[in-house]
Amino acid sequence: MNVVNGLYIRKCLAGCILIMIMQTPLPADEDTRLLVAGKIITLHSTELNENRTLLVYLPDNYEMMEEKKYPVLYLLDAENHFFHVTGIVQFLSSSWTMPQMIVVGLINVNRDRDFTPVWIPNSRLSGGADRFLDFLEKECFPAVESRYRTEPYRILAGHSLGGTLTVYAFLTRPYLFGGYIAVSPALGLPKNMLLPDIESHLSEKNRRNKYLYITLGNEPSYRPGIDRFTELLQDGSGDGVVWRFVSMPKYHHGTTPHLSVYHGLEFIFDGWQVPARIYAEGLDSLRAYYDALTERFGYTVKIPEQMIRRLGYETMAYDRETARIIFEEYVRLYPDSPKSHDSLGELYELEGKYLIAKKHYETAVKKSRLRPDGYEDLYMEHLQRIRDKLTSKLF
Amino acid sequence: MNVVNGLYIRKCLAGCILIMIMQTPLPADEDTRLLVAGKIITLHSTELNENRTLLVYLPDNYEMMEEKKYPVLYLLDAENHFFHVTGIVQFLSSSWTMPQMIVVGLINVNRDRDFTPVWIPNSRLSGGADRFLDFLEKECFPAVESRYRTEPYRILAGHSLGGTLTVYAFLTRPYLFGGYIAVSPALGLPKNMLLPDIESHLSEKNRRNKYLYITLGNEPSYRPGIDRFTELLQDGSGDGVVWRFVSMPKYHHGTTPHLSVYHGLEFIFDGWQVPARIYAEGLDSLRAYYDALTERFGYTVKIPEQMIRRLGYETMAYDRETARIIFEEYVRLYPDSPKSHDSLGELYELEGKYLIAKKHYETAVKKSRLRPDGYEDLYMEHLQRIRDKLTSKLF
Repeated sequence: MNVVNGLYIRKCLAGCILIMIMQTPLPADEDTRLLVAGKIITLHSTELNENRTLLVYLPDNYEMMEEKKYPVLYLLDAENHFFHVTGIVQFLSSSWTMPQMIVVGLINVNRDRDFTPVWIPNSRLSGGADRFLDFLEKECFPAVESRYRTEPYRILAGHSLGGTLTVYAFLTRPYLFGGYIAVSPALGLPKNMLLPDIESHLSEKNRRNKYLYITLGNEPSYRPGIDRFTELLQDGSGDGVVWRFVSMPKYHHGTTPHLSVYHGLEFIFDGWQVPARIYAEGLDSLRAYYDALTERFGYTVKIPEQMIRRLGYETMAYDRETARIIFEEYVRLYPDSPKSHDSLGELYELEGKYLIAKKHYETAVKKSRLRPDGYEDLYMEHLQRIRDKLTSKLF
Repeated sequence: MNVVNGLYIRKCLAGCILIMIMQTPLPADEDTRLLVAGKIITLHSTELNENRTLLVYLPDNYEMMEEKKYPVLYLLDAENHFFHVTGIVQFLSSSWTMPQMIVVGLINVNRDRDFTPVWIPNSRLSGGADRFLDFLEKECFPAVESRYRTEPYRILAGHSLGGTLTVYAFLTRPYLFGGYIAVSPALGLPKNMLLPDIESHLSEKNRRNKYLYITLGNEPSYRPGIDRFTELLQDGSGDGVVWRFVSMPKYHHGTTPHLSVYHGLEFIFDGWQVPARIYAEGLDSLRAYYDALTERFGYTVKIPEQMIRRLGYETMAYDRETARIIFEEYVRLYPDSPKSHDSLGELYELEGKYLIAKKHYETAVKKSRLRPDGYEDLYMEHLQRIRDKLTSKLF
């Protein structure tokens, strides 16, 4: 296998997903080749006056797609949840349920301190949620967003007290995240000490297009807090938030997290996969659909390259004029993709417009030299074919 | 963080789960620390006359627990499913839904060839399922089982044609695996060419304590094959198999795998977590419960160490005689655990039997020197205390 000693590379296993492989400098032994799930980075926080450890998962194609940007899922209690949640993200994005995404897992220093909004009597350290959110907003996000290619869309997921912090972030700083997954959150304590002022927080902020997913297992002591909160949401508080509460009676506090994150991401990205009906209606409907996704998520969501190319070729079989419009849109959306120029070239070649076809094939070849995609020979072949056709026309 | 250059070690992050960390020999840079999801090993197959690549996931505590053995989940189409399925295994075992488990993912060479029981007309290569199962039985299992510490309990999970192979293994070699998860399996083709002779296979073998979990999304073309098969099972064919078919109408062929494996493992290990009622009944009920699990899974399933220790200390508060029986059983089940001897020592100390208490504390100290568990100082302290008590008795 194609493994580089002492460096990690991305390699395609059987052409399906990309897995990072690295080799240690140990004596050659097949067991030293390892599958890598993520990186560990350390960040000094001035807000918290301590070093924080982040676990970072990058999507399979991160290195290859040099211009692509990704939303970021911030995950609390990463020591427990990073590995299984990155598995969910990899699966849901590879099956087109949601976009590929960066996951940043936060390793705890003191979760009681960081995840509680107010001081809890008899606790050693608590009430640091505002400082922790300051750290996220002023230090963690800038560090992640300067280091990695990110879209301005973030999700926060937390379990138990991490769920408390998630709901608190939703209440007090809804502009920080677009999606919130609060798993078995502790929202109520005797005298509502854990999350005070819910009502006034809820009435204050704009929550349009914010998605909130809350779950609870068979955890009776957590129920009153959840009930109080969801009643407020039910009554229309929260100004435009799209929310769902799911009861999981067969699960307990320790078993709710995995399925909650899975279904929470499905909920937040409901509609990410374009319905067959929209695709069948053609380019205008597709464009309107992706414009709506762009509006909803707050960053440009383009018609996927494979989709618009496929639509173009399918349309070319019976309506060249429409196919030309589709391929022109394809080139406009993906100007650096050799394939887009090659596709438009094929359309013009079919229409007998050899000179303009040649121009697009030339662009495809040029782009593919800058960014090889494995089809360089095909683009060259097309260019040669059109040159031959042009030559034979001359004589 | 405690990272060793050029070697990987297991490190406890915040005391919850263990993640393997390794560092490349590149210049010191925090980004070179990587989280490792598994190993890649290569195996030459004489049966198939080719090299096969296996991805191997070891449980978090594999290196620490030097004598512990683990069941093995064999996963087909590992290039697609290894990462997200190992996440499920890590989560479900860390939340006590099932045992910790080794996962062996098989990377494809030619899945059409390997996963189809009979030759499919017009296919280039097909009908190699028997040879592939020979490879598993005669080469892959011995290689895995000689290299890693395994219990004699295996599970097979496969999707699509991998589901076909999974059902075929269940039909023709039910002795190979204890649990079968067939996700969206292709069981029927026109004229039932894909899986012939289901009826005769089903009637032939002993399937006592075999667990079979089958799922299907919104995949109408797969339905007739599934219906035919489940009707046979419903009619009582399959001699003792415990099976379930789950329809997932909201999911399609590409989105069924993750939840199917999750719920399939829940199904296979239903009852793995001891009910509170059994625990409350005490040692005899617990012993009977774990004897039944041992019978069902075909390998010794012991009362978990934490559980029997906790039961002992809880019982010690009101019934020393019973607590002594529990701690003696604890020592019998975990003779190499320093904690078991320390616990029995505490019981005898409480009973005033200082000499025998001293003997057990000495064993705890000795065992903890062989296998440090972080409590060495505590065992020494107990030993010193009992020595002081014995000395003060003398004078």
